[in-house]
Amino acid sequence: MYGLVGRMTAVAGQRDALVAILLDGTDGMPGCHSYVVALDPGDPDTIWITEVWDGPESHRASLALPSVQAAIARARPLIRGMEQVAETTPVGGHGLVDVSA
Amino acid sequence: MYGLVGRMTAVAGQRDALVAILLDGTDGMPGCHSYVVALDPGDPDTIWITEVWDGPESHRASLALPSVQAAIARARPLIRGMEQVAETTPVGGHGLVDVSA
Repeated sequence: MYGLVGRMTAVAGQRDALVAILLDGTDGMPGCHSYVVALDPGDPDTIWITEVWDGPESHRASLALPSVQAAIARARPLIRGMEQVAETTPVGGHGLVDVSA
Repeated sequence: MYGLVGRMTAVAGQRDALVAILLDGTDGMPGCHSYVVALDPGDPDTIWITEVWDGPESHRASLALPSVQAAIARARPLIRGMEQVAETTPVGGHGLVDVSA
């Protein structure tokens, strides 16, 4: 598996709008075991995104999906910055959706 | 919801043993929507743990569960350090187990 921990910074005042796009545009992505969007309670502009994919190829391929492309186009003007905090190799746990089907 | 992103460092050579304890002792915790254990591919001693709970109370309560207490006792000698990278407020996504039942 392939995991990402990312920190996104929204343009001031646009975090809620950006979160709505992230939640809407990233549903049902092939190979995606987990995709969690979270607010940073200590910073009004910061969003944490934690992802688990079956491999880096699925993550890369997701960026070309029409639904994700549309979400990126809508989200771009609301994003001030994006930092990849960690790239990981998930080995198990709880809440990993079965994507073998 | 209540989320945590943590980075744990194992005693040298003990990461696999520590991961096995984490995966074994943390199954079926009440109020836990997601608990993912991941290796850091760039550091042989580092583990990333990302958690989503229905609230901080469930997370705190989990630490008192007999299964978790037993896991902590077994894990402690294998842990060199633990850093809380982020405390978050998850708002949605994919892979969040329903704990309302």
